[in-house]
Amino acid sequence: MVSSFPTNDAAGATLRLVPLGGLGEIGKNMMALECGEDIIVIDCGIQFPSEDMPGVDLIIPDVSYLVARSHRVRGILITHGHEDHIGALPWVLPDLEVPVYAPRLAHGLIQVKLRERRRTRDMAVHAIEPEEPMDFGENFRATWFRVCHSIPDAMGICVETPLGTIIHTGDFKIDHTPVDGHTIDLPALAGRGADGVLLLCSDSTYAELPGYTPSEQVMGSALDRAMADASGRVIIATFASLISRIQQVITAAEKHGRKVAFVGRSMVANVNMATEMDYLNARPGTIIPVREADNWPPNRVVLMTTGSQGEPTSALVRIANGESRDVELVEGDTVIISATPIPGNERAVSQTIDNLLRQGANVLYDRIAPVHVHGHASQEELKLMLNITRPRYFVPVHGEYRHLRAHAQLAWDLDVAPDGIFVLEDGDILEINSEGASVVDSIPAGPIYLDGPTVIDTDSDILRERRSLARDGVVVVCAGLDGDGNILGPVQVAASGFVEQHDLPEALRGLAEAVEIEVAGLLMENNRESAQAKIRKVARQFLRSNLNKRPMIIPVILDT
Amino acid sequence: MVSSFPTNDAAGATLRLVPLGGLGEIGKNMMALECGEDIIVIDCGIQFPSEDMPGVDLIIPDVSYLVARSHRVRGILITHGHEDHIGALPWVLPDLEVPVYAPRLAHGLIQVKLRERRRTRDMAVHAIEPEEPMDFGENFRATWFRVCHSIPDAMGICVETPLGTIIHTGDFKIDHTPVDGHTIDLPALAGRGADGVLLLCSDSTYAELPGYTPSEQVMGSALDRAMADASGRVIIATFASLISRIQQVITAAEKHGRKVAFVGRSMVANVNMATEMDYLNARPGTIIPVREADNWPPNRVVLMTTGSQGEPTSALVRIANGESRDVELVEGDTVIISATPIPGNERAVSQTIDNLLRQGANVLYDRIAPVHVHGHASQEELKLMLNITRPRYFVPVHGEYRHLRAHAQLAWDLDVAPDGIFVLEDGDILEINSEGASVVDSIPAGPIYLDGPTVIDTDSDILRERRSLARDGVVVVCAGLDGDGNILGPVQVAASGFVEQHDLPEALRGLAEAVEIEVAGLLMENNRESAQAKIRKVARQFLRSNLNKRPMIIPVILDT
Repeated sequence: MVSSFPTNDAAGATLRLVPLGGLGEIGKNMMALECGEDIIVIDCGIQFPSEDMPGVDLIIPDVSYLVARSHRVRGILITHGHEDHIGALPWVLPDLEVPVYAPRLAHGLIQVKLRERRRTRDMAVHAIEPEEPMDFGENFRATWFRVCHSIPDAMGICVETPLGTIIHTGDFKIDHTPVDGHTIDLPALAGRGADGVLLLCSDSTYAELPGYTPSEQVMGSALDRAMADASGRVIIATFASLISRIQQVITAAEKHGRKVAFVGRSMVANVNMATEMDYLNARPGTIIPVREADNWPPNRVVLMTTGSQGEPTSALVRIANGESRDVELVEGDTVIISATPIPGNERAVSQTIDNLLRQGANVLYDRIAPVHVHGHASQEELKLMLNITRPRYFVPVHGEYRHLRAHAQLAWDLDVAPDGIFVLEDGDILEINSEGASVVDSIPAGPIYLDGPTVIDTDSDILRERRSLARDGVVVVCAGLDGDGNILGPVQVAASGFVEQHDLPEALRGLAEAVEIEVAGLLMENNRESAQAKIRKVARQFLRSNLNKRPMIIPVILDT
Repeated sequence: MVSSFPTNDAAGATLRLVPLGGLGEIGKNMMALECGEDIIVIDCGIQFPSEDMPGVDLIIPDVSYLVARSHRVRGILITHGHEDHIGALPWVLPDLEVPVYAPRLAHGLIQVKLRERRRTRDMAVHAIEPEEPMDFGENFRATWFRVCHSIPDAMGICVETPLGTIIHTGDFKIDHTPVDGHTIDLPALAGRGADGVLLLCSDSTYAELPGYTPSEQVMGSALDRAMADASGRVIIATFASLISRIQQVITAAEKHGRKVAFVGRSMVANVNMATEMDYLNARPGTIIPVREADNWPPNRVVLMTTGSQGEPTSALVRIANGESRDVELVEGDTVIISATPIPGNERAVSQTIDNLLRQGANVLYDRIAPVHVHGHASQEELKLMLNITRPRYFVPVHGEYRHLRAHAQLAWDLDVAPDGIFVLEDGDILEINSEGASVVDSIPAGPIYLDGPTVIDTDSDILRERRSLARDGVVVVCAGLDGDGNILGPVQVAASGFVEQHDLPEALRGLAEAVEIEVAGLLMENNRESAQAKIRKVARQFLRSNLNKRPMIIPVILDT
């Protein structure tokens, strides 16, 4: 079925696998493949910051390796439309002007993103269809194949190279009753396996979980039951990009004669786009604007919102805190949190549940009801993927280091690729030629933090400074400087986040005096920095010995 | 078996239940009971801070309600020796000088704590024995009864009052094969139930979990297998206070001819105390100092450490980061994380596992092996407690609000106390008299944050300031003031945690100029604060419109 690939001389060819994100972490998935003069890139995702990254809004991959070779990059190939696979495109494309190829729904979601920004408005994005081979330069032929995941049009990519076939699963699960009716293309994978697979890169997110991941259908029944049981409104929180989940909600709502309204900007935008593209199907009149929801009896209303991760500014958290303009909770409302907390969000989600309960809502969440199934393969599915493809080399992708290791262990247990399992992390370059494979290099592939409009470098001091400011607060010590270069008293001090307001005057008065005694009259000798260092040292010693405190100290010397 | 309690006139008596911690949260458990002129307090624990509480070391309950009534407080009654039940005593006792009563092991752990601080060195702590009634004033007679938990000598407390009997379970599970051989005293509970129970306060921590909690014995087998399988050292991380777990490790180590060494100050201190008190039993020569561990072949060594929660300064995290003075990981080491992450610690634990794996260790943790069982009752055990005591009133304790609600639902499903289930949160006062029960008041019972030696008030601005500093950094704007009260240029600016070092000079130069233009020459009119406000406003506007940044701004005016 697949045409034979016009290979170069395999004996001389070298293939390089360059993971730029998603290996050793959850999120910002990105992987480059290099062969001859050609480079292709699979996915370009973002990661969400954790609480130890203060002020960071988003994390994107470091693509400097690709930018330095941009004339060789033939395209970015997208597996599906989730943020951790497409979200970095608006930031990466201005530096790396290459065409993007994506399945139809992802294509739509990407276009929405790119159009929002002037610099990416006119970038080329091409919609691809599965099972249609496409050449990228002389060394790569890519064929997308369907997988199951929690968004329609999720695909893996099969890449033929002079050295053999690479299978990259993208995110996947094996669901025999998926919402969109498209099962994973096991025949294609079996065919590839029979022909021989050089390298398998397979999703490791749930490699620690025994057994099989339940079908999305399970969730459909739970929704159905909840809508039948609820005497009032049903409010369902999930990710805005879980288009399949949104379809399930619409289907269940229609069955129970309920209207569906969407709350939250990203949810509304995605629903509009997916509806236009026919990935969401609702009868006329089912979907109503949120402002009309109150015109219907509560038991005929379903609301869908974002905020399933307890994000502070999300619709659900506003509702839970009684701060939403759109939705006020009343006794009898049922709230369904249709997601599991991403590691690091457990506390925020728990607080949101507590606040919803305090407002009188009935709350269904993963711990007490089957209101979420995840979109990634568990161990038995991963074993099936390994066994059906029987690759020569295996690189677990998409997961924390421990997930990758657990996945490698599965392959080891199955005796799949016993001499060719490589647990790589971002930046580790795996080189494969006809002789064998080995890790030959490691390039910088650390996270790039976005703080609003600003890029924070990976090795920046900013986050360290911010963590220090957060821990102990800041004390400012300001001294004057006369025309002769002598430091003058009186010294002025100020602080924030340091000690209680009522303790502050006394704490700071002592500090000002101590600094004056040590530095007033000192000749600065045109060296402002050493004078600042002296002030910092005196202040640090005073605060440590008198108050047992270690705040950030900012010395300022003012010319008078 | 229990002598009849010499009641006052029940008709006129009023009982007040005042939860001061642990209701609507995990940790800092503390509950006051008030009747007539008598008050008793059950437990006095700490809570550990989450990542959104920068610089907070510990959280203790607000006991101002008790301090205002200290002459009526007859004692603090302790259920068991875990930190979330005894940890706040060193901070509370100096303000609330009352005797403490505790089971023997908890008594030992408390004494270690109190002796460390001058202000609590001579406080009275009494060891109690189960099944021995003790009177507290005229209105309370307390009898401790054995429960199972993850520490020996864990007990619940039965309190007789003029209105009837209160049963407080403490933390408990039902374990028929506990490590210390003491099963939960179900006969005593059944007897109380038969006599009639006024109020049950029962542990809700795992009220969401269906079924039964496994016995500690399960964990023993897992340890056994791990020690048999491991070709090298076995390193086990758990809480320093999980004395039962430590005993299991010693027992398994002896079976496999391994020596046991303890790493980490709190682990060593607890082991010494528990050994002295006969709560830990090891053959002579089993326990060795950590510095001698390297004298033995790796397959004859077990190390126990703290750090199971990924605490940054713990022994395990130092080991994982290759920064431990005591232990350097080598290929062949097996690390067992014998704990589940407390909500909020998931990411830190995950990073620790990743780093251990990266160093070449084999790592066993809850997701992939049965290396931890928890110490709290699951739903079937909670139902048993409800059914055996059949209380007139029921107050779920110890848990987030959602756990309390789930526990209330269980009681509701069983038709136990159908008209008397109260889901209270810290500070809600439940009043019970012969007529009935109702929530009559709510008192301040918010968290008290300890930042090193400093107490941060619940309503303090400090944490808000610190979060703001962490998010966007700080900018200092310093202007001079002449003798006539005029603000002078040039203005000096400085920043921390704000923008990248290489962008800083330009960002700040523009700011200094903008402020000078607006404020230089302004007459301050003896109002330093309004001048500072003016500087802050100008700086804020400049930074917002030019850089789209919102850092904390500290204005300083220096007399020249």
